[in-house]
Amino acid sequence: MYDLEKIGTEAKKMAAYVRRLSAVEKNAALMTCADKLEENTAYILEENAKDMANADPSRGAFNDRLKLTAERVKAMAEGIRKVARQDDPTGETLYMKTLPNGLQVGEKRVPIGVVGMIYEARPNVTTDSFALCFKSGNACVLRGSKEAINSNIALIKILQDALAAQNHPRETVQLIEDTSRETARQFMRLNKHIDVLIPRGGAGLIQSTVENSTIPVIETGVGNCHIFVDESADLDKAVKIILNAKTQRPSVCNACEKLLIHSKIADKFLPQICDALHGAGVEIRGCDAVCKAFAHAKPATAEDWHTEFLDLIIGVKIVEDLHAAIAHISEYSSGHTEAILTENYTNANAFIDLVDSAAVFVNASTRFTDGEEFGLGAEVGISTQKLHTRGPMGLKALTTTKFFALGRGQVRE
Amino acid sequence: MYDLEKIGTEAKKMAAYVRRLSAVEKNAALMTCADKLEENTAYILEENAKDMANADPSRGAFNDRLKLTAERVKAMAEGIRKVARQDDPTGETLYMKTLPNGLQVGEKRVPIGVVGMIYEARPNVTTDSFALCFKSGNACVLRGSKEAINSNIALIKILQDALAAQNHPRETVQLIEDTSRETARQFMRLNKHIDVLIPRGGAGLIQSTVENSTIPVIETGVGNCHIFVDESADLDKAVKIILNAKTQRPSVCNACEKLLIHSKIADKFLPQICDALHGAGVEIRGCDAVCKAFAHAKPATAEDWHTEFLDLIIGVKIVEDLHAAIAHISEYSSGHTEAILTENYTNANAFIDLVDSAAVFVNASTRFTDGEEFGLGAEVGISTQKLHTRGPMGLKALTTTKFFALGRGQVRE
Repeated sequence: MYDLEKIGTEAKKMAAYVRRLSAVEKNAALMTCADKLEENTAYILEENAKDMANADPSRGAFNDRLKLTAERVKAMAEGIRKVARQDDPTGETLYMKTLPNGLQVGEKRVPIGVVGMIYEARPNVTTDSFALCFKSGNACVLRGSKEAINSNIALIKILQDALAAQNHPRETVQLIEDTSRETARQFMRLNKHIDVLIPRGGAGLIQSTVENSTIPVIETGVGNCHIFVDESADLDKAVKIILNAKTQRPSVCNACEKLLIHSKIADKFLPQICDALHGAGVEIRGCDAVCKAFAHAKPATAEDWHTEFLDLIIGVKIVEDLHAAIAHISEYSSGHTEAILTENYTNANAFIDLVDSAAVFVNASTRFTDGEEFGLGAEVGISTQKLHTRGPMGLKALTTTKFFALGRGQVRE
Repeated sequence: MYDLEKIGTEAKKMAAYVRRLSAVEKNAALMTCADKLEENTAYILEENAKDMANADPSRGAFNDRLKLTAERVKAMAEGIRKVARQDDPTGETLYMKTLPNGLQVGEKRVPIGVVGMIYEARPNVTTDSFALCFKSGNACVLRGSKEAINSNIALIKILQDALAAQNHPRETVQLIEDTSRETARQFMRLNKHIDVLIPRGGAGLIQSTVENSTIPVIETGVGNCHIFVDESADLDKAVKIILNAKTQRPSVCNACEKLLIHSKIADKFLPQICDALHGAGVEIRGCDAVCKAFAHAKPATAEDWHTEFLDLIIGVKIVEDLHAAIAHISEYSSGHTEAILTENYTNANAFIDLVDSAAVFVNASTRFTDGEEFGLGAEVGISTQKLHTRGPMGLKALTTTKFFALGRGQVRE
């Protein structure tokens, strides 16, 4: 059996180490890591080639994410440098006050401790996860998938060598090299040693982590995002926003997957938007009314309304009014991003208040839900759960707070 | 099989309802609930008497928590009124800024949605949990233990009647009346409907919830709290603080359970503090050195160092220095509250930085870790986990945030 207990114990020790580093020390180490990655490009590509040789050639998009090139290694290094240049999220005192008995009580932002990341065959997630965890003062334990194991071992070796060169312990970042499912399950139950587990990948990985983990999990990413076109929408703007939200990058979680159209404008707007979407190569899966009105539409299945297509496919439905739209969203949304297109003040506000998603937009493309766009810096993911962090997560999502009190002998009466 | 699916579906609907209530509406409903509780004291005591008749007479402290009196019902009503008088934790916009493209992006505090609470035979937790959830804009599903079932059914009926009298749906608060373990397990897996699950009770309940829940859990309460007496401590203050922390209310989670004494002052301080503790009726379980030095000390077992005694018992150990104290705490603490008693500036700061607990104190009793003491108002519990909320939890712990964006047709380039 793979010795996860040892990895966990070591990580907890490392958390105490990393927590004490100053921003200057952390940034210097990250810059060295970035340089060493670039210097070792040939070695990385060699190890990545082994993974590519083992890859199933039928999985095109999957293999594209697995494959590294000199340019991609450079981008990984740049990603680390970018994190190094961000502000340290820890150390800030959120408030401090003096109680009536003279005890001074404060709350300050501190690292979480040990962060676990579990992800799929994308080697760039290895370096990115390390950089985010280290910058926020955390030790990390990474578990990538078996398809990328040679790449990951090489990347971790380079990071650990770079850390050692700066006199930091190698175990500051650890990789679980046994990629079996059994070991992944055990990893998810290491709540004694690991403070938070973040799955970075598709719906299946996230579901399995939520089901099996005893470690608190931050759920990221699934986006079955809706746009509702209200009766009063500016229809020209609406076409532009919908096309952008659906087609600008259909494979990402903030792409629009469902379009709801107010019944009173359907006659006018439906042909316009369906032509535009169809013209842009988007497959339309409609409710009965949509299928009747637009020849190229296919009937949507019950399953389709729940599905994050991540492709040039969109579900289109005519709804009675704003409240029917909100009811549909409440039933089917994954809680990521929803938008209303409207010129009506009351409806805009009602949508913001009543739609229970991480991000709710008025008259803008769903594609804006993004840490970089929101000015949060490098993004850990987009949380679709409600605890701890919701929506785009920056470095702050990898921190917690602690209370402290400065006394002079106070006791409780 | 008990229909938890129905309860969950209903709770999700209710979340959408409660979320929209204004503070004025919520406060009025809570005040009515408090009045109705007092008016129905006789009925409550009658139902509570059934629980007491079924109780195992050998469980003294347990039965004391289960038993209601007219005075306790009044205290429950007062508790609800106190929550009504607190500020509404939701609605606040945390920030709002305009992106370079003119899109205005903000983040605001909103209710979580559906809060689940699972607890033991303390009927006051029923009314308290409802008040905290409702005031923070959440629907709630409560599961108390079988020993209190008659009391809980009566309390929920009164709360629901009071809500209905104000034209609110009864299902705003729901009780799981089937108190079987099987149903509790199912409840813990209702992550489709319930956003957060908070166990309020002892270590066994918390452990079982963490192990079995697919709903995000907030861990509360276990406190194996340490006090370290540094070489430079003011020993008179130290005696007062330690006695207060151990004996003022030994049954609570912020009571001191372990005392670590710097080796250089052990000869002087050990007799002084052991006499004081022994004189106050505290049983001392010591390391070898303590047992040698103090005749009344019993040898501590390996298990004792991990144990939250919740009683007039304390573990006492001589440690080499500050770093040995921190290492011991890191190994054995439950991460609740630890204190250093010192006059040394550097050691005080090192302790605050290096001890990874929800609250770290200098020269004050551990008994201060408390929502009321910290000015957070009514307390949901004390979180010993690091995600979402850490330390004393006020109403804010029952909220989350959402991003919103006000556009005028922006699309992503």
